[in-house]
Amino acid sequence: MSFNTFGRVFTFTTWGESHGPALGVTVDGCPPGVALDEGWIQQFLDRRRPGSSKFTTQRQEPDRVRILSGVFEGKTTGTPIQLMIENTDQRSKDYGEIAQAFRPGHADIAYHLKYGIRDYRGGGRSSARETAARVAAGGVAQAVLRELAPGLRITGYMVQMGELHLERANFDAAEIGRNPFFLPDAAAVPAWEDYLNATRKAQDSVGAAVEVLVQGCPPGLGAPVYAKLDTDLAAAMMSINAVKGVEIGEGMAAAALTGTANADEIRMGNDGPRFLSNHAGGILGGISTGQDIVVRFAVKPTSSILTPRRTINQKGEEIELITKGRHDPCVGIRAVPIAEAMAACVILDHLLLDRAQTGGQRGRIG
Amino acid sequence: MSFNTFGRVFTFTTWGESHGPALGVTVDGCPPGVALDEGWIQQFLDRRRPGSSKFTTQRQEPDRVRILSGVFEGKTTGTPIQLMIENTDQRSKDYGEIAQAFRPGHADIAYHLKYGIRDYRGGGRSSARETAARVAAGGVAQAVLRELAPGLRITGYMVQMGELHLERANFDAAEIGRNPFFLPDAAAVPAWEDYLNATRKAQDSVGAAVEVLVQGCPPGLGAPVYAKLDTDLAAAMMSINAVKGVEIGEGMAAAALTGTANADEIRMGNDGPRFLSNHAGGILGGISTGQDIVVRFAVKPTSSILTPRRTINQKGEEIELITKGRHDPCVGIRAVPIAEAMAACVILDHLLLDRAQTGGQRGRIG
Amino acid sequence: MSFNTFGRVFTFTTWGESHGPALGVTVDGCPPGVALDEGWIQQFLDRRRPGSSKFTTQRQEPDRVRILSGVFEGKTTGTPIQLMIENTDQRSKDYGEIAQAFRPGHADIAYHLKYGIRDYRGGGRSSARETAARVAAGGVAQAVLRELAPGLRITGYMVQMGELHLERANFDAAEIGRNPFFLPDAAAVPAWEDYLNATRKAQDSVGAAVEVLVQGCPPGLGAPVYAKLDTDLAAAMMSINAVKGVEIGEGMAAAALTGTANADEIRMGNDGPRFLSNHAGGILGGISTGQDIVVRFAVKPTSSILTPRRTINQKGEEIELITKGRHDPCVGIRAVPIAEAMAACVILDHLLLDRAQTGGQRGRIG
Amino acid sequence: MSFNTFGRVFTFTTWGESHGPALGVTVDGCPPGVALDEGWIQQFLDRRRPGSSKFTTQRQEPDRVRILSGVFEGKTTGTPIQLMIENTDQRSKDYGEIAQAFRPGHADIAYHLKYGIRDYRGGGRSSARETAARVAAGGVAQAVLRELAPGLRITGYMVQMGELHLERANFDAAEIGRNPFFLPDAAAVPAWEDYLNATRKAQDSVGAAVEVLVQGCPPGLGAPVYAKLDTDLAAAMMSINAVKGVEIGEGMAAAALTGTANADEIRMGNDGPRFLSNHAGGILGGISTGQDIVVRFAVKPTSSILTPRRTINQKGEEIELITKGRHDPCVGIRAVPIAEAMAACVILDHLLLDRAQTGGQRGRIG
Repeated sequence: MSFNTFGRVFTFTTWGESHGPALGVTVDGCPPGVALDEGWIQQFLDRRRPGSSKFTTQRQEPDRVRILSGVFEGKTTGTPIQLMIENTDQRSKDYGEIAQAFRPGHADIAYHLKYGIRDYRGGGRSSARETAARVAAGGVAQAVLRELAPGLRITGYMVQMGELHLERANFDAAEIGRNPFFLPDAAAVPAWEDYLNATRKAQDSVGAAVEVLVQGCPPGLGAPVYAKLDTDLAAAMMSINAVKGVEIGEGMAAAALTGTANADEIRMGNDGPRFLSNHAGGILGGISTGQDIVVRFAVKPTSSILTPRRTINQKGEEIELITKGRHDPCVGIRAVPIAEAMAACVILDHLLLDRAQTGGQRGRIG
Repeated sequence: MSFNTFGRVFTFTTWGESHGPALGVTVDGCPPGVALDEGWIQQFLDRRRPGSSKFTTQRQEPDRVRILSGVFEGKTTGTPIQLMIENTDQRSKDYGEIAQAFRPGHADIAYHLKYGIRDYRGGGRSSARETAARVAAGGVAQAVLRELAPGLRITGYMVQMGELHLERANFDAAEIGRNPFFLPDAAAVPAWEDYLNATRKAQDSVGAAVEVLVQGCPPGLGAPVYAKLDTDLAAAMMSINAVKGVEIGEGMAAAALTGTANADEIRMGNDGPRFLSNHAGGILGGISTGQDIVVRFAVKPTSSILTPRRTINQKGEEIELITKGRHDPCVGIRAVPIAEAMAACVILDHLLLDRAQTGGQRGRIG
Repeated sequence: MSFNTFGRVFTFTTWGESHGPALGVTVDGCPPGVALDEGWIQQFLDRRRPGSSKFTTQRQEPDRVRILSGVFEGKTTGTPIQLMIENTDQRSKDYGEIAQAFRPGHADIAYHLKYGIRDYRGGGRSSARETAARVAAGGVAQAVLRELAPGLRITGYMVQMGELHLERANFDAAEIGRNPFFLPDAAAVPAWEDYLNATRKAQDSVGAAVEVLVQGCPPGLGAPVYAKLDTDLAAAMMSINAVKGVEIGEGMAAAALTGTANADEIRMGNDGPRFLSNHAGGILGGISTGQDIVVRFAVKPTSSILTPRRTINQKGEEIELITKGRHDPCVGIRAVPIAEAMAACVILDHLLLDRAQTGGQRGRIG
Repeated sequence: MSFNTFGRVFTFTTWGESHGPALGVTVDGCPPGVALDEGWIQQFLDRRRPGSSKFTTQRQEPDRVRILSGVFEGKTTGTPIQLMIENTDQRSKDYGEIAQAFRPGHADIAYHLKYGIRDYRGGGRSSARETAARVAAGGVAQAVLRELAPGLRITGYMVQMGELHLERANFDAAEIGRNPFFLPDAAAVPAWEDYLNATRKAQDSVGAAVEVLVQGCPPGLGAPVYAKLDTDLAAAMMSINAVKGVEIGEGMAAAALTGTANADEIRMGNDGPRFLSNHAGGILGGISTGQDIVVRFAVKPTSSILTPRRTINQKGEEIELITKGRHDPCVGIRAVPIAEAMAACVILDHLLLDRAQTGGQRGRIG
């Protein structure tokens, strides 16, 4: 057990702080013989990178990943893969007040209470920079999934930002990569831009909700009772900074449904069961059914804002605090590629686990 | 790693099917010298028991727990505690159609696809009877918490059933144990009764939302990044049968908030930080702050209903199915003591983990 | 992580004390669809049972195993398998002195120092009765191996008892089951009988060494660096009560060898590499090569003896102690089926793990 | 679970190959507030370093460790500590034959069979260079032990090299650091030098046995049944490259002892139990008693030798092979600091685990 490890067979362990010399991730349990190079992983990091749009922090990090181990002549060897990203844009500055004060809504005070010591520079270990390491691990998972589950596709997108909601009727996956919001609705982009510009001008920030869709997931992934696929997906998403809620399929709305409405009725399709609806979000009893997997989560607004808030410092003095610096007005945006990465790791992990226990055999219907 | 084990240091492993001879749980990592007997654990099981009200399944099980190991002369010894509950009310019946058919919304089809074999009697391993074992494990955790964190109190209650919501203004914890809904509002009970009676008469079922409140939790529990307290709580709740969403503090509503609204401002109280609000639900950066911990989750409606639904069977034939038998019209009700048990286990586990890493020391303020 | 769990994917968790109502084991991660019944497991328990010869404790336990979960219509379902053995021969007696005194060489004092409480009856958790649970788990592993690795055979036997050593030249596997010593040499049995009878008459006990041979093990099992097959085998054997040393292949004798002597040279056989010797004991770099796996371990003499020994009690008083009761003069004898069980579990676990990571593919030669 | 992670609460995960750009280790679960810098860790690495004497490989690596995370202003923060060592002396050379051939006694063939691909340069992941990462992790453990168990001291030394054995009567701990053999007997050094020189001239190598002594270990560390202190120590030592046997206390010799001889009798000392002998090697029932812990293990001779050996290559051709290059004539020498590091990690891990379960309380005697 390691506090900083995620996964069961395909595992990754992240390390590093925001303003240390580097951060990275050790990926273990990766199948051998899978094509992998730095360029492949870099494409995932580039989507997450701060500074990639005006709506994410202007900290300029190339986030250049280096493979330090586990890959030989362009293929994975089955040994641990170390991916390192050097921190290059740690502006030297006076952390004066922040070093001693606790930003409201931030991990500062909790780290101080637990450890009695914290690297306050840029949030240290609690910084969202840790998520770059996850995205790199997700890149490895995607390389393996490409070989082991060729039809599988993982797509993340925003479904809410503050008061704005995605119009489901306008959903167009092709648009996701064409705007700074990972928004599958081109027509809505100007309104989202205005909304976020107004938020920033108000020296404020705003929350968001993100959805991840896994298409082409094989049935049979997940295991009762404490290794359910949805349990691991929930843990994966909740482990992302600032996430406060996770939903599978209907999610919290399931509380309002009746059994007749919620039942996903089944007919026979050409090559197996065909479900007439997907309230379950692709998972029954903790195990994938072959339907689309639908995961959704909420990200709270950035706690580092320019509007003064009341707080205390380590001396116990009551103060007012403004958090200067380069902070995203909506951290939820950057959560999209992170969530895709976490989903990829969970799915691959369970694919390998299922291979261990059942050999990948499937019960027959018909 | 075991699919059926939960926890890191204080762990429990459940076993057993709905209609086998018995089910149970092995609790490991329990501190020694803690007073424990069957009566103490039984009180928790009695709260969960089917048949305890007319709104839960009329299956009559005494759910009598036996301690088979790990307790000597009324105290825990530090060795594994085996708690066994015999299944006494497995009515012999003809499972005919159910044995081959897949109930919509039920784990039947997923188990079949994964394992190629399933104990169809009463849902087998996917039955809610497994949760009796969790409740027993939670009883052990509560016995330990009583000694290690005397001021800590865990309270679960329903906040939603179908279209009915708890009126927060009427919240009265004293009422929770006085009605069949674990509802902290005496005045609302008749309406909830009428609603559930109508649901049952309509041969239907309904979803629910449950909240768990942890008061008096010490700060410093939880660890970045993949052993966050909220991550483990989310996994704990999502592992409960039929749960589709989990929220901490504001939960999904955080997506709509601004940073200024969401910031839980801090002042100095008499014996430490005093927070002016609790949008965070008591956890920052994955670590408890000493505020109340607030967890909420949604339970989907029972999938076993008397209204016919379209489905298929193992032969691939398209059929209509009615699920006869003794099924709860709202399984969310029984989720209340289960969720309390899971919360107790998570909190204790992190208390022990924190003791391992920090020795229980706390960073000073002031 | 559970203190009482062994394994990575195929895991088992034992519970129970010598004089409690029962003991048992939860097996998790077992592949589904494997034929399994109580009779199959019982045959392994019968080989280990006390009272099966005059050289093992005369405690008369039928050690009747019951399958409480995880098996349906004669086949494993992929869910946890609970195997319970009731303790039927706990003679009620006055534990008087033993309850407070620490037997030299026994776990009594260590348990007391750690936990401050211990179930002194029959040694409680430290009793060799715990190994019955392992043997039951091993029976499950053997059932799975029979299907997944049909040519694999695991054979344990004694190679030393006190001053007596197995004559390797006389090795005859067929004899192992025909004498009370699991000794592969019929001619030596009378001398071993005399030796052990003399030991018992001297109110003494004696140590032993046991070897386990795994024939037909597929290559590729094990993983660098901390999940090596030999690492897990060493842990498995060292976890058995009273074991003080573990060897793979040459074992401790490797310290005296030269590189030229130790090199297992390789030629091509009909269906793959053919090794000209087996100093390595079938494992290189932590991974099986396809050669026979050879594990050996030493068991210290029973610490419970009738000869008085100096010790202290909980009050700190210096006393002399005789341990009455039914104790094996050579516990090493009963270690044979236990070690076979542990080897079966380790091999199966790594077979499943390898299936997870590599899909069971093998690198080609030629 | 990660194949490359060791430990339960204090864990470390190593990564890297012999001829990649770097190797390293992530240490997790380390208590916060412990003084740590690169100089402290470097002293442990310097003891292990190749080229530190004429009897270890002449590969010249400074093995300079860098702390990349987890330490702030000279103290551990409780977050993961990344320690990286760059590989600087990878001579570019033609691996021609080695790239395709399997060195007898080496992991080459096992890696090939399992993964179908291997980094053959310098042995890749199976290289002893991996142990540098362990030694670095051990340095962190020693820094923590210095604070949490100030009286504890871990001392490794050689007890055998080929035909030469340590004369126990001459044991002088002060000599260990003064000769290239970690030999606690100054008088024997010239004979050991002659022996090893002769071995090298014969283009051969030789095995060794190493002992680790832990003095001042608190009682109560370790837990039944599968987390025994001796089980974890056995796994730790067996995970070191080329180790073929592990012993605790009497070790394999216990097989020859009688119960009367083996019993470590107990008297009362001034501050607790006083044992009259230490056949047990400081551990009873898997738990430390407060006596010295004694662990011993055998290292096989280096398989890379200049004497030609028969083997095969990937094409299945039968060849003769000489392994050129800079190889230790006795790898057992360098195993000494590695074993100390592993022992430090195991002891600390169990100290933290014990703190979790018992709070570090001890049962009273007297």
